[in-house]
Amino acid sequence: MLENLKQSVFEANIDLVRHGLVVLTWGNVSAIDRETNLVVIKPSGVSYDTMTVEDMVVVDLDGNVVEGNLRPSSDTPTHLALYRAFEGIGAVVHTHSTYATAWAQACRAIPSLGTTHADTFHHDVPCTAPLTPEQIAGNYEAETGTVIIDAFKSMDPMHTPAAIVAHHGPFTWGSTAQAAVQNAVVLEEVAKMATITLAVNPAVKMDEHLIEKHYSRKHGKNAYYGQK
Amino acid sequence: MLENLKQSVFEANIDLVRHGLVVLTWGNVSAIDRETNLVVIKPSGVSYDTMTVEDMVVVDLDGNVVEGNLRPSSDTPTHLALYRAFEGIGAVVHTHSTYATAWAQACRAIPSLGTTHADTFHHDVPCTAPLTPEQIAGNYEAETGTVIIDAFKSMDPMHTPAAIVAHHGPFTWGSTAQAAVQNAVVLEEVAKMATITLAVNPAVKMDEHLIEKHYSRKHGKNAYYGQK
Amino acid sequence: MLENLKQSVFEANIDLVRHGLVVLTWGNVSAIDRETNLVVIKPSGVSYDTMTVEDMVVVDLDGNVVEGNLRPSSDTPTHLALYRAFEGIGAVVHTHSTYATAWAQACRAIPSLGTTHADTFHHDVPCTAPLTPEQIAGNYEAETGTVIIDAFKSMDPMHTPAAIVAHHGPFTWGSTAQAAVQNAVVLEEVAKMATITLAVNPAVKMDEHLIEKHYSRKHGKNAYYGQK
Amino acid sequence: MLENLKQSVFEANIDLVRHGLVVLTWGNVSAIDRETNLVVIKPSGVSYDTMTVEDMVVVDLDGNVVEGNLRPSSDTPTHLALYRAFEGIGAVVHTHSTYATAWAQACRAIPSLGTTHADTFHHDVPCTAPLTPEQIAGNYEAETGTVIIDAFKSMDPMHTPAAIVAHHGPFTWGSTAQAAVQNAVVLEEVAKMATITLAVNPAVKMDEHLIEKHYSRKHGKNAYYGQK
Repeated sequence: MLENLKQSVFEANIDLVRHGLVVLTWGNVSAIDRETNLVVIKPSGVSYDTMTVEDMVVVDLDGNVVEGNLRPSSDTPTHLALYRAFEGIGAVVHTHSTYATAWAQACRAIPSLGTTHADTFHHDVPCTAPLTPEQIAGNYEAETGTVIIDAFKSMDPMHTPAAIVAHHGPFTWGSTAQAAVQNAVVLEEVAKMATITLAVNPAVKMDEHLIEKHYSRKHGKNAYYGQK
Repeated sequence: MLENLKQSVFEANIDLVRHGLVVLTWGNVSAIDRETNLVVIKPSGVSYDTMTVEDMVVVDLDGNVVEGNLRPSSDTPTHLALYRAFEGIGAVVHTHSTYATAWAQACRAIPSLGTTHADTFHHDVPCTAPLTPEQIAGNYEAETGTVIIDAFKSMDPMHTPAAIVAHHGPFTWGSTAQAAVQNAVVLEEVAKMATITLAVNPAVKMDEHLIEKHYSRKHGKNAYYGQK
Repeated sequence: MLENLKQSVFEANIDLVRHGLVVLTWGNVSAIDRETNLVVIKPSGVSYDTMTVEDMVVVDLDGNVVEGNLRPSSDTPTHLALYRAFEGIGAVVHTHSTYATAWAQACRAIPSLGTTHADTFHHDVPCTAPLTPEQIAGNYEAETGTVIIDAFKSMDPMHTPAAIVAHHGPFTWGSTAQAAVQNAVVLEEVAKMATITLAVNPAVKMDEHLIEKHYSRKHGKNAYYGQK
Repeated sequence: MLENLKQSVFEANIDLVRHGLVVLTWGNVSAIDRETNLVVIKPSGVSYDTMTVEDMVVVDLDGNVVEGNLRPSSDTPTHLALYRAFEGIGAVVHTHSTYATAWAQACRAIPSLGTTHADTFHHDVPCTAPLTPEQIAGNYEAETGTVIIDAFKSMDPMHTPAAIVAHHGPFTWGSTAQAAVQNAVVLEEVAKMATITLAVNPAVKMDEHLIEKHYSRKHGKNAYYGQK
């Protein structure tokens, strides 16, 4: 079932490696079929060198395995929480990419400091609240989804398709697995740029007009970047 | 038309990738034919993996598309403004290369701290003024050209063939597309070196005599670097 | 003798290069056969480009060469000290990987700042005491083992399978050569992340509950990460 | 003439690229034949992609071209000054490698902070005095040699085979072109490590006993590192 979606999720997982966002087996991509509410996700702890498209696991929105011989990613409950809460998204990516993870460890939102950021992320990429001891002791991976969702109470997750989880690392999403991977690439790059920018000028702030201009140039209803 | 120039612009765009200056589809190269005042430029938002020489777009100095099936880069008005203002230049490069962009985000000129810088750039690489809200709301990309041109009121753009646009990123230029790409490579490297140098010794200053010596060794009328 | 172990040690040495942990000939891997108490180790100062599986040297726990035409790594006495003290380990890796070595030079333990660290290392990766002048003048390489062992007086070396030796560099270990190399890869990555995190937020501290959760998720008796 | 030496110098230049020490055409290697006092050196400003062994230039110790169709490197007088002053050396390397150049721009000696440094360089790698305006206006490249030689008035250039020239970049040397390139590789790596170490612990100092131990372990008369 969902062979096209499996192929897309498999390729997106491999793209994470190609873009240098993955060490060892860290990182995972999923995508949802909104008609059946079934989710295709990478299996847990499998080497990217030997993984095949057949290893992809199909789960329902409650986390039951519908197809597949392997265990789904241990982060599956986080992915599912995001699909349930953010109705517009079609795919989720989680990595431990170096700079975005370092900012997550620092418990600081990644600030919008330039047009590279604003072209993809409308606002600062939020850092979640740390999970409480109760959340950690409870359904930990689902609660990781909760703190991400909480971070978007007054923000549109479609306009800023990324969050960093405190002390953990980045999650990104998008309409397709490819778009979510692309957002993960951009997030790592803007996290690296922000690190260097703040080393060179710790007090700098971004202009709000320029943020609006660049975001709307690519994403607003009058967008004119790219081909028609 | 302009088949040689198209080939040169196409190859220069690919060289940006080869030199590690490009993430995703960011960055663009153009070149001008000064006899016809026609400009060849990369199309907007096209993947480097699939782009062909036939995708290059020809525009006149007012931005009208003269040949090509794709939209030209959204940064075309910036390129055209530079061609109109800087008569000696034959090509323009724009990238979001990591370190040069981080300095642009920091709104700091990249200081000349050594001979690596002075061999290519006579003076500090200027950072433009931030665009005003009126400039952002108006003809934004053309105004991006304006702030670059303003930064060279008392500097020769042929001797320091680069600027960084505040909160945005670097533009470089040169007599040919190849030379402009080479200047983009050097700019990224000196931005990285400057970041490290200032971390190691925040107070260091470059000697003016050494700047003059190295720049004239390669570019003055008595230049003796390279082959005859 | 021990042909399988030699093959494993040889491949693990090559993996160090593949993972970017090695400059020139720096770094070495060994593994022990606990039945015979014989250790297979990389020869000293041999180029990775020309090294073959036959170049691996077999020594006993007193350092006597049992098989092999080349001198064993000059760090052999350190490896042997670790095998004698840490009975659960099957392999040892030593590298001069950039970030882990820089932290060793800084004489600072690598702090657990996120789940990337806690997934592999239960606690901060300790930095040893500096060797005393007497230790340096004496059996230097064996004493390097002593200061590592001293750092684990109140810690379990199987739960935090790494140490950095003051002013020197990292040692990691594991049940197999492959596992010890993997720990060396993770150590370099968490050292790099910690450097960036502390640049971005020097005061950050990791939550103890989250450390316990992530370590036990992968390693505790109720571990549920990966495949069964 | 000197065909073996030309081959060795050619390969060493290519090795600079392979080790990631070169941007564009920056960097050059030379080697001397001490019997004839003839020096083989890279031509000036030639691309590494097209350079052949036949392009190597032979000069005498006064800088006269003895064989070759191309101009020798503009840095030739610096190389020759080092050959005249340091009688034990057989080859010289100059690069603009990123971290070593950044330290040169910072006008700070690269401190010995660990055994990685002490294994190759007995002491801190000195940074020269800045050239005076008179030196810059005079025989600039020969004077660059002078400030390097001055930095070794109370140090042995064979034991610390590297210097960084203030505001410029690194020079290394060795008995052969291959050894001098290897020293350039180590210099770049220890410069990078020192940058990170000082970010993590600005006050750290290296122990003098450990420096002596590691240097003598590899280079003293009782050296026991590597094969016999």
